[in-house]
Amino acid sequence: MSDTLTISQVNELNYEDFIGRFGNVVERGTICAAAAWRFRPFRDVYHLHQEICSFIDLLPDTVKEGVLRLLPDLAGRLAELGRLSQESSAEQKAAGLDTLTPEEKQMLKDTNAKYKDKFGFPFVLCARQNKKEAILKGIVERLEHSAAEELNIGIKEVKKICLLRLLNIVPDDTQNNTCR
Amino acid sequence: MSDTLTISQVNELNYEDFIGRFGNVVERGTICAAAAWRFRPFRDVYHLHQEICSFIDLLPDTVKEGVLRLLPDLAGRLAELGRLSQESSAEQKAAGLDTLTPEEKQMLKDTNAKYKDKFGFPFVLCARQNKKEAILKGIVERLEHSAAEELNIGIKEVKKICLLRLLNIVPDDTQNNTCR
Repeated sequence: MSDTLTISQVNELNYEDFIGRFGNVVERGTICAAAAWRFRPFRDVYHLHQEICSFIDLLPDTVKEGVLRLLPDLAGRLAELGRLSQESSAEQKAAGLDTLTPEEKQMLKDTNAKYKDKFGFPFVLCARQNKKEAILKGIVERLEHSAAEELNIGIKEVKKICLLRLLNIVPDDTQNNTCR
Repeated sequence: MSDTLTISQVNELNYEDFIGRFGNVVERGTICAAAAWRFRPFRDVYHLHQEICSFIDLLPDTVKEGVLRLLPDLAGRLAELGRLSQESSAEQKAAGLDTLTPEEKQMLKDTNAKYKDKFGFPFVLCARQNKKEAILKGIVERLEHSAAEELNIGIKEVKKICLLRLLNIVPDDTQNNTCR
């Protein structure tokens, strides 16, 4: 089997294989793929993305917070232990988070701890669209926001991460692969 | 750390450890634990169960179907491959599903396939509360139901399975551990 799928191949998957391929496009949010399956046939990868986004949008805020809690800290404990999901590991590497200086790492760790203490969920950012300098700056700025603002921003980032993960499985040959 | 927790210990867990302990009380439905965490402090294990049930209840039917799709077939492919979650493996064994005759196994496999073909989700039953004879009889009877009836029954079974998994982690010493 090819590493990537066409949308026709996606539409032919039974739910078990579908969940097997798409179960982590929202980190540890396997229910997103399990629910989206029933909306086949998908016109294209963006249609599949839209169904997952619609599902997330209908969740109450208390559960949206839960979606954010499923994501690992950037350059956090799981990264140090080598226990990130394959997708998160590649994304954090793409952002250069594996090349942080000891000082940068400590600063990110401390700010992450403050962020989680304030909001009850982790700082979420689409690492593949940001470099480490932007991430280090971003977390300090976002720490000043309200919980409602951060929930809103975090969920938008989850959707961006989801689209990039989907495009890794179902490439769109007609477009350059930027977030819509 | 002890294998079981008191409710006070549960209430002291940060969200990462909480998700680590309760992430599979709804099979592959980690979001349930991630969302429930914010409702601490829990009075007792039933309060935690109630929050998870409330979360499931607010999902639209299309997503409730997704919750059912997260569960493995009883005595199905994952069981054969030894790839069930630890919890599912113990539950299926408790029901005697590891002692099916070849004929019973084939009958369950065929009926499961028909069930999934009809409803788009698997036959779900709290295995620990049933013996294999009841399961084999139950699936044939339930195959005759409507999709709406089976969605309703399946979700009730998910909640029962969830409570028994919760009680494995947070035993209730004041009660005998039957489903409420």
